[in-house]
Amino acid sequence: MEDIKTLEAESAEQTTRNVIDELLRGAGQVMFQNNVWTGLLFLIAIFWGSLREGEMMVAWGALLGLATSSVTGHILRLPAADGRQGLWGFNGILVGCAFPTFLGETTGMWIALIICAAMTTWVRSGLNNVMAPWKVNSFTFPFVLCTWIFLLAARAMQGIPIDDMSTPSLPSHFTSLSTIPPLHLLEYWLKGVAQVFLINSWEAGLLMLIAIAVNDRWAALWAAIGSAVALLCAVAFRAAGSDVAGGLYGFSPVLTAIALATVFYKPNWRSALWSLTGIIVTVFVQAAMNIVMQPLGIPTLTGPFCVATWLFLLPMIRLDYQTEIDHSNWSVENKPHLARHGSKRSK
Amino acid sequence: MEDIKTLEAESAEQTTRNVIDELLRGAGQVMFQNNVWTGLLFLIAIFWGSLREGEMMVAWGALLGLATSSVTGHILRLPAADGRQGLWGFNGILVGCAFPTFLGETTGMWIALIICAAMTTWVRSGLNNVMAPWKVNSFTFPFVLCTWIFLLAARAMQGIPIDDMSTPSLPSHFTSLSTIPPLHLLEYWLKGVAQVFLINSWEAGLLMLIAIAVNDRWAALWAAIGSAVALLCAVAFRAAGSDVAGGLYGFSPVLTAIALATVFYKPNWRSALWSLTGIIVTVFVQAAMNIVMQPLGIPTLTGPFCVATWLFLLPMIRLDYQTEIDHSNWSVENKPHLARHGSKRSK
Amino acid sequence: MEDIKTLEAESAEQTTRNVIDELLRGAGQVMFQNNVWTGLLFLIAIFWGSLREGEMMVAWGALLGLATSSVTGHILRLPAADGRQGLWGFNGILVGCAFPTFLGETTGMWIALIICAAMTTWVRSGLNNVMAPWKVNSFTFPFVLCTWIFLLAARAMQGIPIDDMSTPSLPSHFTSLSTIPPLHLLEYWLKGVAQVFLINSWEAGLLMLIAIAVNDRWAALWAAIGSAVALLCAVAFRAAGSDVAGGLYGFSPVLTAIALATVFYKPNWRSALWSLTGIIVTVFVQAAMNIVMQPLGIPTLTGPFCVATWLFLLPMIRLDYQTEIDHSNWSVENKPHLARHGSKRSK
Repeated sequence: MEDIKTLEAESAEQTTRNVIDELLRGAGQVMFQNNVWTGLLFLIAIFWGSLREGEMMVAWGALLGLATSSVTGHILRLPAADGRQGLWGFNGILVGCAFPTFLGETTGMWIALIICAAMTTWVRSGLNNVMAPWKVNSFTFPFVLCTWIFLLAARAMQGIPIDDMSTPSLPSHFTSLSTIPPLHLLEYWLKGVAQVFLINSWEAGLLMLIAIAVNDRWAALWAAIGSAVALLCAVAFRAAGSDVAGGLYGFSPVLTAIALATVFYKPNWRSALWSLTGIIVTVFVQAAMNIVMQPLGIPTLTGPFCVATWLFLLPMIRLDYQTEIDHSNWSVENKPHLARHGSKRSK
Repeated sequence: MEDIKTLEAESAEQTTRNVIDELLRGAGQVMFQNNVWTGLLFLIAIFWGSLREGEMMVAWGALLGLATSSVTGHILRLPAADGRQGLWGFNGILVGCAFPTFLGETTGMWIALIICAAMTTWVRSGLNNVMAPWKVNSFTFPFVLCTWIFLLAARAMQGIPIDDMSTPSLPSHFTSLSTIPPLHLLEYWLKGVAQVFLINSWEAGLLMLIAIAVNDRWAALWAAIGSAVALLCAVAFRAAGSDVAGGLYGFSPVLTAIALATVFYKPNWRSALWSLTGIIVTVFVQAAMNIVMQPLGIPTLTGPFCVATWLFLLPMIRLDYQTEIDHSNWSVENKPHLARHGSKRSK
Repeated sequence: MEDIKTLEAESAEQTTRNVIDELLRGAGQVMFQNNVWTGLLFLIAIFWGSLREGEMMVAWGALLGLATSSVTGHILRLPAADGRQGLWGFNGILVGCAFPTFLGETTGMWIALIICAAMTTWVRSGLNNVMAPWKVNSFTFPFVLCTWIFLLAARAMQGIPIDDMSTPSLPSHFTSLSTIPPLHLLEYWLKGVAQVFLINSWEAGLLMLIAIAVNDRWAALWAAIGSAVALLCAVAFRAAGSDVAGGLYGFSPVLTAIALATVFYKPNWRSALWSLTGIIVTVFVQAAMNIVMQPLGIPTLTGPFCVATWLFLLPMIRLDYQTEIDHSNWSVENKPHLARHGSKRSK
């Protein structure tokens, strides 16, 4: 009797460990880091940032979204390998950050959050099925598409009240930053990293860079480069001051940088140039998508990262001559090395 | 001499029967019902609803669109099996309902209706070619895409005058329904069914449910469930009152319900849950698309049904363990059972 | 020593000839003409039109864009056969025409032009990878997509000032042409051809028709037919007068006409009817896209040509029974004859 109880207790303990492991990896995978410590530090950064802004619901929403999308993968019996790597969690945690940020905290909003976070799991499978022949995957676009649906719906349903989204308007006059004290540049730079999780806090951004470095220092370096180069580009081209100051031109390029420089290509000077170009292009795509969404009053979310990275991966440009690539961070579904190194089968 | 005349007369009679058979099946296929009696009852419902609203041109337009898209399939020599099942007609009949509903009755409008209805036939082939590897097909999206083109063009061409479309505006304040007498709920529920054919009449909606039941009572039940659940969801989330009252939140979910619950999945409690989720998601997609189209002043048509159903079919989630599915209602082009039951070849 | 110098000089001379050859073919390929004389006459037409409008920067921009996108193909080591046929140049030259037309001439604009023109080369590869299974290619959509990104970004970045784009507005009242003197019709007709290169000059349009005829008289005839039929259609349906007068309803149908009637189908009366239908549909797509872009204040560029031609090629309608097609004008990547004449593999 005692032995059976012990076995059951051990089994329950193992299951709990597995669940926590999967959830933390899910958090880490938002920035392509399949690592429980990275994920844990990301969650701490989210809580810290939410606390500082007095928006604790964002942190709780993040946990709820993360858990919802992860459990949905199990319910739908999707490939277990994806779950173990946290690939069901990263879209959901972003949904959970977004809903309390932009919408009022009503029952309708929380119900919609759960539906939306769950949706991202099967929408991710569907989009990946479509994109598989093109050797790319859906990145955070399940989060972007599903959240757009609900943010737009919120403008047509009083049961999901708008809390903090721009009023729909036609593009017109705006002001850019005239003079920027260098210390502010540091703040905008780090906020760019934090805004990946929709957090408006430079301390959270710094903690996130550390979190990435725990798994992959090269990725942390490129995340930093991404936000910095993007900030300089946005300032040089005189984008809207409030967007630049909030780090809103930095977060998509952070993801593009990590994806191009550390996930999909082996590090060499050619892929570094390619990644820098990708970072800069992402800034223009961000600006363009800001304009497109303006008459609807909806944020772009990480849409620019998805669009720009697809534009840089679909051509399957070969930037090196070795046959190995470290893709242990990415799902077995996506085999980028076949595109980057193998025969060009789909051309 | 007499025998030859008799043979010719019989042949002409047979051809006429085939034509009528194909046209009626085309009407039925709007809601996935490959049945001449369902199609006939749909047409009667369209005429009844048009008569009641004093818009007889909608009914004549429906016939014109149905005939145009069907004959286009023969002209282009598309696979005859599609024609016999009425798969060339259902997009055209919807075009024919839409044009007189939204546009003024001028010569330019009728010419555009013919071009648009004909277009849907080859646009359907083209989109199906693209979507075939994803184990889905274009549903009513040929109708949606082609009609959008002409409704938008109408805003730029005085030769196609606008008759009944919302003025382009940015999303802003709206009112939802405060109290709804139960009898009105019945009316909105049945209008939701009728609005698949853009008909604003609860009697027509009731007749359409009967029409579906003539072919497949399970599909009629799910059509009823689709409109009902969608109505409750739209009311619960307090969508715009005029849209809810006109049944405009019901028609896309009717099609999603029939597709998921009776066409693409075998009936069991899992697919029932999946279909209910699909119905609810369609309501949010409808709300979102209402907002997206608002600055252009264009109706969503059955776009939300297409988007939502694609999102629920692309993942190719398996919900049962049997190998047979009744797909006699669907084209030979689309073999959903291979996706739902066979090996996951395209993953 | 002398022999080596001579060999080097000859080699440099050959390289120069190859470069010029490739650039001129790139200009010609905008209208599917793989011919250095066509390309040269196109460039002369661009310079003539720019001179007449006092906008010389458009001509210099065209050269800069053409050179940038072409050299990018070499840098990325894309298939050399594409380069030799000028397939890296035609998107870039259009970028180079567009930027100085719509944007102010600042350093930021020229930097953006270079980035955008370079982008079109790898975006073309990426989109062609995606579209290859559908037996179509990306046409001028790399130019359209990339330029849209930067024109939209210009509305969010003061570093790229707007010079000549419509103010964002919601669709509303407009005036069409009441009476048109026949001589003006000739002017609008020829402007339609010139507007492919965003040039507003009937003399340039006439020179461009001659340029096409130098390579392929049939294509020149269909270019003329395309602009003429489109003009009549736009006038008949009473489109906005200023757009019609500027030839803005003619340029996309010119490209659709050349593509359908002379590139993708063998000439016969069936493909002629198909092409005429394509020309007319392109006019409605142009009108529709004008409305869609109006709230963003962005031009459609050659988007309507791409959309309409895809809708007419994706169905892979067979219009003839011979197995040969002259595709020497098109890249080895795209084998339309397999779609139009071979087995319907992807149906």
